[in-house]
Amino acid sequence: MGNQTLPAGAASTRARLLDAAAKLFHEQGIHVGVDAVCREAGVSKRSMYQLFAGKDDLVAASLERSAPGFSAALLPAPDDGRSPRERILHVFERLEHLEPMQDFLGCPFVATAVQAKSPDHPASVIARRHKDGLTDFFRHEAHRGGARDPELLARQLTMVFDGASARSVVQAHELDGLAVTTAGALMDIAGIGSSSPDGDGAPVPRAAQPATSPPR
Amino acid sequence: MGNQTLPAGAASTRARLLDAAAKLFHEQGIHVGVDAVCREAGVSKRSMYQLFAGKDDLVAASLERSAPGFSAALLPAPDDGRSPRERILHVFERLEHLEPMQDFLGCPFVATAVQAKSPDHPASVIARRHKDGLTDFFRHEAHRGGARDPELLARQLTMVFDGASARSVVQAHELDGLAVTTAGALMDIAGIGSSSPDGDGAPVPRAAQPATSPPR
Repeated sequence: MGNQTLPAGAASTRARLLDAAAKLFHEQGIHVGVDAVCREAGVSKRSMYQLFAGKDDLVAASLERSAPGFSAALLPAPDDGRSPRERILHVFERLEHLEPMQDFLGCPFVATAVQAKSPDHPASVIARRHKDGLTDFFRHEAHRGGARDPELLARQLTMVFDGASARSVVQAHELDGLAVTTAGALMDIAGIGSSSPDGDGAPVPRAAQPATSPPR
Repeated sequence: MGNQTLPAGAASTRARLLDAAAKLFHEQGIHVGVDAVCREAGVSKRSMYQLFAGKDDLVAASLERSAPGFSAALLPAPDDGRSPRERILHVFERLEHLEPMQDFLGCPFVATAVQAKSPDHPASVIARRHKDGLTDFFRHEAHRGGARDPELLARQLTMVFDGASARSVVQAHELDGLAVTTAGALMDIAGIGSSSPDGDGAPVPRAAQPATSPPR
């Protein structure tokens, strides 16, 4: 679904369509029709169908186009010098920060997969790939941090990430540290301390932090 | 949205509409039109609009009608004699069992809130109430089990529940014990052992269980 081979005009049309699609699908849902997307983008349906095989392809391509932006908003910079524990917590701090800013609409990858209703939908394939990328990041840091079972911890952290996102949608309320506290607790159990930058030496588990309980 | 005051015929029509709505909204999404719901139910649109103020009301009422069934499928029977830890794990075991049976469509309450795109949508209100009920169950058991912070643990367990559900949608794959393992780990940290039926005496935390890591 790359646009490397498109002439400049078509590439610009494609970008306008994908921006409009990402906006409408995220705000209203992927059932929004191609008519509305074309109107928002200022592009004819004929032009749209010259660039995309159909609606499903448009949904998938718009999600794929959003992916690098979401990753950049969530993940720490490569080699930022912080410990694996801090780099993992960064993701959960960013999630807690971003959800209210995005009006508690939740993770667009999960939201799209939930709406697509099929694991074979091309957008579900994109969503799965993005989630696998997040799990890969967690696994890499868990391994560096000396986790006893990096694969298990990586899957647990991805699950907490998605659960935190779902919770913010349902409650429409800030997470108040719940995602960060829970990620930290799971790292404690896995044996990732604050002072184990590269898995050398024995990791020092921190005690589970007592958290004050916000009203909900 | 109760139907206590409806005559028998209208109550039956209402039930047929709600069953059809629950089926179509869960399988295809809440954007499915009232025409399709009326067709599936064998009910005229005129009859539908005599019973429901509109589409949003129909979505909320169908979700509310499903709620007791979902609770029964997930929660243990009251006073089943098992420990709080076992009663909490029951919910996660049931979730892992039910997701594949329901074709990995995820929690209908989260799915509906994600699609409703507004916390004020009447269906979002129903979804929030149901999730609060699950959190209440966890809090009650956490308190009985002697958890250090029952409120925190209850919110963590609800988050893991929703994350596990989201994960099964995105991966379309069995959870392979991930939800159960993670709930157990969080209970370990909170100090809920297996042998503390009513919060009397010191809870005995179990060691985090090493879990084999399935391929994804």
